[in-house]
Amino acid sequence: MTDHRPAFALGAWSARQLANVERALKRWVAPPEPVPAPAGLGDAMRYAVLDGGKRLRPLLVMAACEAVDGSPAAAIRVACAVELIHAYSLVHDDMPCMDNDILRRGKPTVHVKFGEAQALLAGDALQALAFELLTPDDGSVDAATQAALCRMLAQAAGYQGMAGGQAIDLASVGKALSSEQLHDMHRLKTGALLQASVMMGAVCGRLTPAAQNALRDYGAAVGLAFQVVDDILDVTADSATLGKTAGKDAAQDKPTFVSLMGLPASRNYAQELLSQAHHSLKASELKHTDALSALADMLVNRRT
Amino acid sequence: MTDHRPAFALGAWSARQLANVERALKRWVAPPEPVPAPAGLGDAMRYAVLDGGKRLRPLLVMAACEAVDGSPAAAIRVACAVELIHAYSLVHDDMPCMDNDILRRGKPTVHVKFGEAQALLAGDALQALAFELLTPDDGSVDAATQAALCRMLAQAAGYQGMAGGQAIDLASVGKALSSEQLHDMHRLKTGALLQASVMMGAVCGRLTPAAQNALRDYGAAVGLAFQVVDDILDVTADSATLGKTAGKDAAQDKPTFVSLMGLPASRNYAQELLSQAHHSLKASELKHTDALSALADMLVNRRT
Repeated sequence: MTDHRPAFALGAWSARQLANVERALKRWVAPPEPVPAPAGLGDAMRYAVLDGGKRLRPLLVMAACEAVDGSPAAAIRVACAVELIHAYSLVHDDMPCMDNDILRRGKPTVHVKFGEAQALLAGDALQALAFELLTPDDGSVDAATQAALCRMLAQAAGYQGMAGGQAIDLASVGKALSSEQLHDMHRLKTGALLQASVMMGAVCGRLTPAAQNALRDYGAAVGLAFQVVDDILDVTADSATLGKTAGKDAAQDKPTFVSLMGLPASRNYAQELLSQAHHSLKASELKHTDALSALADMLVNRRT
Repeated sequence: MTDHRPAFALGAWSARQLANVERALKRWVAPPEPVPAPAGLGDAMRYAVLDGGKRLRPLLVMAACEAVDGSPAAAIRVACAVELIHAYSLVHDDMPCMDNDILRRGKPTVHVKFGEAQALLAGDALQALAFELLTPDDGSVDAATQAALCRMLAQAAGYQGMAGGQAIDLASVGKALSSEQLHDMHRLKTGALLQASVMMGAVCGRLTPAAQNALRDYGAAVGLAFQVVDDILDVTADSATLGKTAGKDAAQDKPTFVSLMGLPASRNYAQELLSQAHHSLKASELKHTDALSALADMLVNRRT
């Protein structure tokens, strides 16, 4: 199914990108020097962000930036910003009034470690910090790009994006959703930020309207495939492999692609979305799409 | 103590500004048409924002914009954005894991009305929406202004601003704070967003570095005065007048300016800050500061 050049080594590429991303996150997320965030807030923020996660969104940002020969200085800020939005959503999602999860990436969740009030504040502060990272006043990112990035992130995170998808998720527990409703939920809940990661990475360079549309399609396909595979892994993998509780969706009676269409059809659907993603990359007529292509493969064929 | 021209009618000016602000909020906060926010999220967001509050921050924005002959199209967006940040902070603050308040402006708080999970999401979505309002793609606000506004709002809302101040507040219950610590807490918790309202309003126009510094001082004085007066009213006013529970700080054993310096010294301090605010306005050499001047008076001499 894959049509990227076999020579591309995703592992080495990812390791190089992530070294930069981790260094940037350490430098920018409520650093303890020179002035620590007040009253332990910085500790909670750093705990929520550093040293964990697949960093899928940052990788999509860096790959999209590479595809358009964009500015690495802008992309590294975007990579961190989308990860902060993702991290804050997990902190709030794990809280007792939401999913009430006590483990995340094998560690106690933020509210277990720091208390609910501090977790709430840490999530809030991480969201604000995402927008702060996108608006440096050091001349490293031009104003038009900053404004476009903030607009895209705000839309992807807000009520017509991630937060809206979570509201559907909340309301859907124990309910039978139609295929259209399930798609809507995931398009917003996880799809919007994944797609925004691609589009924001691409805004760090120049691209034709045709390439922009193609990357939007790529982002939509990859965002949806990610969720389909997540639903598959929830029933096929064990908790140790996943690093989180397997079988949770079924236990919570949450509608999933697997519960809607069954396992074999879900697997076919994931492969079909992968083909769509590759097709969109071709249609973009961009030259350096090796990393985007390999990331799509990895996303769909992952085991965790 | 006041030195503004006696002819300025703050009531009429405020009513005019607020009519515009309320109309804009109704139009921009998760409007039910054409596509409603999913799963009731829009209702919770609108409940949190519409039809309540003194709208002090929007008034400071509009007054500062007027002082610099700034763009009303930009200022109305800023006015709504700062109010959304304020509103989201109240929603999260009222939750059981924070202040556990069931009444706000005489109505059930958002989590009482819509449930905790929806309140959490509504607050999150309101923060994102604030940045969305600051970054229109209709050409009404230039990109450099958009970027500067997002930067200022993110800093004022985040760990070095409002969220940081709330973390200090959390950690300070039942503790004796020094005068410096109490000032630090309020400078961040309420002062940062009040000051940002002034500075963001001013960014909607052009101003000299000297005027910028003077407005920053005005914003700091007014922000602090607001909190000192809040502490005074908490012990001198009754709940019906305040529209919220009076005597709450003492009941929760929270350090306040009154508990630190006593009532008479607190009143003197508020008047001293008011003088500083007026002095800063003079130093700004801006011509149209009537509204900023009258707002400072109103803030310090208010009864609720």
